[in-house]
Amino acid sequence: MKTPGNQIRTRPIFFMAPFALVMSALIFSHCAEPDDSRELTALQEKALEFTAPLPEDAFEDGMERCEERIELGKMLFFEPRLSKSGLISCNPCHNMSTFGVDQLPVSVGHMWQKGPRNAPTVLNAALHNSQFWDGREPDVESQAIMPILDELEMAATEEHVLAVLGSMPEYVDRFQRAFPDEEEPMVYENVGVAIGAFERILLTHNSPFDNFLLGDADALSDKEKQGLQVFMDVGCQSCHGGTALGGGAFAVFETPAERESGESDLGRFDITGNELHRHSFKVPSLLNIVQTYPYLHDGSVWCLSETVDIVARDMLNEELTEEENAQIVAFLHTLTGEIPAYALEKPVLPASTPETPRPRFD
Amino acid sequence: MKTPGNQIRTRPIFFMAPFALVMSALIFSHCAEPDDSRELTALQEKALEFTAPLPEDAFEDGMERCEERIELGKMLFFEPRLSKSGLISCNPCHNMSTFGVDQLPVSVGHMWQKGPRNAPTVLNAALHNSQFWDGREPDVESQAIMPILDELEMAATEEHVLAVLGSMPEYVDRFQRAFPDEEEPMVYENVGVAIGAFERILLTHNSPFDNFLLGDADALSDKEKQGLQVFMDVGCQSCHGGTALGGGAFAVFETPAERESGESDLGRFDITGNELHRHSFKVPSLLNIVQTYPYLHDGSVWCLSETVDIVARDMLNEELTEEENAQIVAFLHTLTGEIPAYALEKPVLPASTPETPRPRFD
Repeated sequence: MKTPGNQIRTRPIFFMAPFALVMSALIFSHCAEPDDSRELTALQEKALEFTAPLPEDAFEDGMERCEERIELGKMLFFEPRLSKSGLISCNPCHNMSTFGVDQLPVSVGHMWQKGPRNAPTVLNAALHNSQFWDGREPDVESQAIMPILDELEMAATEEHVLAVLGSMPEYVDRFQRAFPDEEEPMVYENVGVAIGAFERILLTHNSPFDNFLLGDADALSDKEKQGLQVFMDVGCQSCHGGTALGGGAFAVFETPAERESGESDLGRFDITGNELHRHSFKVPSLLNIVQTYPYLHDGSVWCLSETVDIVARDMLNEELTEEENAQIVAFLHTLTGEIPAYALEKPVLPASTPETPRPRFD
Repeated sequence: MKTPGNQIRTRPIFFMAPFALVMSALIFSHCAEPDDSRELTALQEKALEFTAPLPEDAFEDGMERCEERIELGKMLFFEPRLSKSGLISCNPCHNMSTFGVDQLPVSVGHMWQKGPRNAPTVLNAALHNSQFWDGREPDVESQAIMPILDELEMAATEEHVLAVLGSMPEYVDRFQRAFPDEEEPMVYENVGVAIGAFERILLTHNSPFDNFLLGDADALSDKEKQGLQVFMDVGCQSCHGGTALGGGAFAVFETPAERESGESDLGRFDITGNELHRHSFKVPSLLNIVQTYPYLHDGSVWCLSETVDIVARDMLNEELTEEENAQIVAFLHTLTGEIPAYALEKPVLPASTPETPRPRFD
């Protein structure tokens, strides 16, 4: 199936300059301190060269962590009335019970329409350098308000959202408390600021690998350590580095299904128009990868082991042995952390009022 | 609009024999003990003639309360992979954040198909004498497994459900622990038994009216007490009695929208073929009624005050004054209880395996 053109397209093209910046930002500003009382093994030190333990939250320097805003953001995340139909909140596509994804190839939105790409997880997303597969939004705050307006997803308008929220005294009050210094707290942008604040606490701590990085050399089994070693030997960390093990660099990539069909997603090119960005996508995070199937930007591959082979071959020109593949997969299993209990606690939503816009199914 | 035929159809026809049975069963076996240390007011005593405080849970005499089964039931309630599409769990239609309903006229299921009737809340549903608007299932255990198979709702088959659950070791283990005495715990019927066990703890305690019944005469304001008095004076409790203030009797009822369109739901007649059951429906519970809009079996009325007028007129032949209506509505506001915190805590669901059936969108 490979043509020379395809080969060029499937070679890894990195945009390392921004990536390096993110990497250092992530490692040196976000990271929790490793446990100094224990001496680190060589493998731990090697791992800490390309990643770092998860920070407590993803609020950046100068950002205020406001609990009122986080709570409002959680309500909005679970609020189906933001959608035109009154049925679709953020949660169906970013299901908190299944690690922030819907485990479908592509998501289903308003009127059962399907989106063009696999929905990435909201867990640890705030650690990424940009949002969406094509990186078109810089942060979770600006990302969060886009699917609400997307005709394929929640199909609402800004006016609808503000009419819904403004119709319920509890939301009016909560916006005032979440944005106490603002004259007009209930503006559409602040819906994103609040959901973003919620997303900034959605970090999945306590994975075996996180504990390994924090100093517990026994947190990984021998096979998992071998997997980490192979992961580094073949160079996975050149893209999957940083605290989120991804979410920083962009790379040109076609999925096997795309190559077969001859119809490949243009990726970041659609945003920038830059020829170098043709078929280029943000490298996904590997955190909780075992749970966030199916894989690749079109959600076309269900098997993690198969995905590892595809990516090693297409991005790194490496043919893994069965053993190496199994070792890497074992290592990837150590990246499953804990969904924050707070995020699993569904909020109780206020009742609509006569002023609340009714669901619409057109 | 009224024709003699319509008048007959909209008169309340009660099936009081089973209702009386439920009433006494509910009052004398389920009820928590009122606080004996305080003397009850006449109004409290009058109210306790037709209802009772909520019991701790809705497990009936001889039923074992098994925590493993409840926990499994909660997982299954939130499990989208039970559906054909892998997208629809019980929760979208019975959203725990919005008092166990979707707040839509009728629910949206597989491929965005719409159901024929408004989805009732799962909260306190286990206190009802039968399930569904037409009462076709006797309990929450037998009810819970029907929407999974309904082509308009979750569109699955028993085989699909068992293949999904059997593919994940965690579910296999949990079924064994939830049904320790059964040789083959993972059978389709037990999906309902587990979800039913979860539903039997979904009682909304601590409403002002519940506290009033438990002995706190000040739990209701003067206006709310007047509302309760009007409620009893016009006879609402003749149908809306029992612990759930409904869920016992059946009554013949056509909604204004049905009368206008000339197309009325046949209700219980479709199940029994009994002419007396033509257009007859289970009387809905009034608990949390302020949150469980829109109203009536077709979800055609959004306004609670309007609903009160319609039902008083059609079922009791009473024209309420504006003041009486407002008083009853004030009383209905006292029926909002607390959603159990446990039910709001979303479970973390196990990852699919290669054996798990894939989502299907046909």
